[in-house]
Amino acid sequence: MQNAASATIAVLGGTGKEGGGLALRWAHKGHRVIIGSRTAERAQEAAAEMNATLGTNNVTGAANPDAAAQADIVVLAVPYAAQQSTVKEVEGALAGKILIDVTVPLVPPKVSRVQLPDGGSAVEAVQKLLGEGVKVVSAFQNISAHHLTHLDAEIECDVLVCADDVEAGDTVVALAQEIGLRAWYAGPLCNSVVAEGLTSVLIALNRRYKVPGSGIRITGV
Amino acid sequence: MQNAASATIAVLGGTGKEGGGLALRWAHKGHRVIIGSRTAERAQEAAAEMNATLGTNNVTGAANPDAAAQADIVVLAVPYAAQQSTVKEVEGALAGKILIDVTVPLVPPKVSRVQLPDGGSAVEAVQKLLGEGVKVVSAFQNISAHHLTHLDAEIECDVLVCADDVEAGDTVVALAQEIGLRAWYAGPLCNSVVAEGLTSVLIALNRRYKVPGSGIRITGV
Repeated sequence: MQNAASATIAVLGGTGKEGGGLALRWAHKGHRVIIGSRTAERAQEAAAEMNATLGTNNVTGAANPDAAAQADIVVLAVPYAAQQSTVKEVEGALAGKILIDVTVPLVPPKVSRVQLPDGGSAVEAVQKLLGEGVKVVSAFQNISAHHLTHLDAEIECDVLVCADDVEAGDTVVALAQEIGLRAWYAGPLCNSVVAEGLTSVLIALNRRYKVPGSGIRITGV
Repeated sequence: MQNAASATIAVLGGTGKEGGGLALRWAHKGHRVIIGSRTAERAQEAAAEMNATLGTNNVTGAANPDAAAQADIVVLAVPYAAQQSTVKEVEGALAGKILIDVTVPLVPPKVSRVQLPDGGSAVEAVQKLLGEGVKVVSAFQNISAHHLTHLDAEIECDVLVCADDVEAGDTVVALAQEIGLRAWYAGPLCNSVVAEGLTSVLIALNRRYKVPGSGIRITGV
């Protein structure tokens, strides 16, 4: 099921800032959203808080594997160090689904330096792990969690969406547009090198030019 | 000598489109510009043509090594396949100078796929080859040659400048600003992965959205 308009979305790592911001915005637009976390309790607390904030009841919480099992579309928004282990934990629940990987492979402490894994982007390793039965899509790496959380904030940063499955990529472009973001299908999964690396470039710009949140806009389209 | 305002600039590969566009714009702003090519004759022809176009006499032509020897700042604007051989050819003339590498590591025929060399960006291999005595700076990979050539065209694409030597990076930011481009110091040379890969992303966007020349703008700075 790839109809963005009616999809149930699980956000693994939805108790974190970036995942929480995306979950909040999709819930606000009427999606059924399942917050995933390592423990069901922590996820349920975050879900209750989100429902209270929004005045809704379409957000629930579950442990990551249950959250993935209940969803049509699964978002991976965990720290880089937990990326592969979380994918392995939910692998059995992903067949035929879209997995949106938000992971930025930052290597502290030098987060303003691009330090991609050997062999290219972090998301390609996930696709390799899962095989062709899961439609892995890379997106949202460059969007400030702070801005996502403020529902009225206009976000001055476009979303680069990379996917080997073009239709899955378009579904994610639509999901981004629903929550007020400009988004573009930016080519196959290997192009995610740019989106993943760009976060470090933006951090470098923030530091050099003493601004809180630089971003990018695509021009000429 | 790093004073951008009075620098003599050699453009190796200045008979090509991208190099020619940059050379034209700097010459138009009054710099002494030396077109470099494999043969002096070809370079001199291109220089004469540029002087005729601009109504100036500040453009000369020379074989690449001579061009590099006569310049304060050297620009490398050759095809990826000729990058390393050209660097080796002019190495002896680069000590203490800034080398601006414009190379985009496209691998035909799949130029809309990011295919960076093993180990990261193409420019890092150049810095490694030359050692610390040369200040290698990466820039201009995403700027359309077509737009550069039209002196009145407003170019809707920012320049990401990457350099381990921040002062050299700032010199190149200033050189870009002189010719009407918005430019930013985007961190150390390893961050050039993003600028080099971005060209393939922009080609992917051009194809997908049927536009002639997409670009990027940095926001929030």
